[in-house]
Amino acid sequence: MTHDEISEAVAQITRTIPFNQVIGIRVERFEVDHVQVAFDMRPELVGNIPRKILHGGVISATLDLVGGVTALASVMRDREVSSIEEVGEVFSNFGTIDLRVDYLRPGAGETFVATGYVLRVGRRVAVTRMELHNETDVLIAVGTGTYITG
Amino acid sequence: MTHDEISEAVAQITRTIPFNQVIGIRVERFEVDHVQVAFDMRPELVGNIPRKILHGGVISATLDLVGGVTALASVMRDREVSSIEEVGEVFSNFGTIDLRVDYLRPGAGETFVATGYVLRVGRRVAVTRMELHNETDVLIAVGTGTYITG
Amino acid sequence: MTHDEISEAVAQITRTIPFNQVIGIRVERFEVDHVQVAFDMRPELVGNIPRKILHGGVISATLDLVGGVTALASVMRDREVSSIEEVGEVFSNFGTIDLRVDYLRPGAGETFVATGYVLRVGRRVAVTRMELHNETDVLIAVGTGTYITG
Amino acid sequence: MTHDEISEAVAQITRTIPFNQVIGIRVERFEVDHVQVAFDMRPELVGNIPRKILHGGVISATLDLVGGVTALASVMRDREVSSIEEVGEVFSNFGTIDLRVDYLRPGAGETFVATGYVLRVGRRVAVTRMELHNETDVLIAVGTGTYITG
Repeated sequence: MTHDEISEAVAQITRTIPFNQVIGIRVERFEVDHVQVAFDMRPELVGNIPRKILHGGVISATLDLVGGVTALASVMRDREVSSIEEVGEVFSNFGTIDLRVDYLRPGAGETFVATGYVLRVGRRVAVTRMELHNETDVLIAVGTGTYITG
Repeated sequence: MTHDEISEAVAQITRTIPFNQVIGIRVERFEVDHVQVAFDMRPELVGNIPRKILHGGVISATLDLVGGVTALASVMRDREVSSIEEVGEVFSNFGTIDLRVDYLRPGAGETFVATGYVLRVGRRVAVTRMELHNETDVLIAVGTGTYITG
Repeated sequence: MTHDEISEAVAQITRTIPFNQVIGIRVERFEVDHVQVAFDMRPELVGNIPRKILHGGVISATLDLVGGVTALASVMRDREVSSIEEVGEVFSNFGTIDLRVDYLRPGAGETFVATGYVLRVGRRVAVTRMELHNETDVLIAVGTGTYITG
Repeated sequence: MTHDEISEAVAQITRTIPFNQVIGIRVERFEVDHVQVAFDMRPELVGNIPRKILHGGVISATLDLVGGVTALASVMRDREVSSIEEVGEVFSNFGTIDLRVDYLRPGAGETFVATGYVLRVGRRVAVTRMELHNETDVLIAVGTGTYITG
């Protein structure tokens, strides 16, 4: 598969996960060392009605996901795959070991973009750094994640 | 308000938060140093369809919430409140500063119970430890949270 | 080797590490699921002279070590070893992946005891929880560590 | 005091802390949003003799310190101080709430530089991100710290 086909496969796999649909996460960029996912504010995602800001769980779920996809992008660089099923198999062997989230500013906004950067990818464990911004580029939260990569 | 009335107020406030409704979180116990919330497995909460396990974001959202409610239980011990609105005001001044989640075992099960324990409550910052078990008492995840308490 | 011989080997290996000597760490208990190390207050370990309290780095170093030794105790349960060199080899394949430390109260006291508990030990990764108390049983800090186990 | 005088005061205060002397930490840069401390490899700092690499506790202690000094640089920007004692008072009201350290690569090298960046500084709490490199610019560890700022 070409890189573009793998990228499309990852976006498709991400969409099929039920709780990702609840949040409305879409993979927008899938490059080695730069992965980006996005989602839009919707009433169900609110954690504080008067202030209309995101629930912390939406933020942690999105940072966790973007970290995992970031690790996947690094791992896929060195693998030959020939079908979306094979991409899915590689990804389903991934798992979050632990996650830190720092909530820096209220999750206000209309569209949110989470980006991931690789800190280290080894044979067994990957470490990534993640950030969440809104559409006016306010840094809402950062995170660090450690993942089993198979 | 009596402790039982405050406890019922906290349960009610928790239920009104939209994203808590998405997960189906209910506050089942609200004692100083021991808070418990629960939710049931539902198709929307799945992160891996073939294995039918919880999405990591459901786990982090629930641990974050139970830590915050645990800190609230400690803070409320020393405060006089006379209405649900006042309880809501105290809680709305809370905010998660940071959160660590350790995903120990797959989130398989029918009902999940998250418990919180206070490590320290100060005038400004509270630190709590959290655990998530399923109905057969398997320890699925633990966490540590730091909260602004007003 | 018997469990007591392994326990003595671990204590000896720990003592030979230069920076452990700087802190004065001694392994006092080496049981599966319960490991304990201790050290005494000394002028070099101070982080705040007027208040005579431990430097945060002494606390994080000790929690990191006790977590690693705790993971080692679990891993050694299932391994046959016949020499201190072999114990050393197993331990030298260990490494801390990440560590969280929560500083709860000032590190005042004369003797400090750090205990470790296993949360999960897998083939590749172990997760442990750690606590630091002083001689009057004040809980000074807690931590969570993730370790590569070989 | 001018910024340069404050910068020199912070370097001096840092040097007087006993455990910083054990590590040999020196403050080399004290700018808002960019703080840098350094130390040299010495036999006492070793955690693994055959591989001659830093003990994890040296790394966590240094990252913790640089994060605190980074938060201090931000807080000092808005404060008028007239003596080194006053700078010392502001700093002694600081305290680490919690710290995450990710150990990415073995701590091999001759000189190590830790840098800190502010993620958020509020009236009560600051959050910083830290990195440790060796003299050949290998990224050895990263961290995130949350600090009480008085």
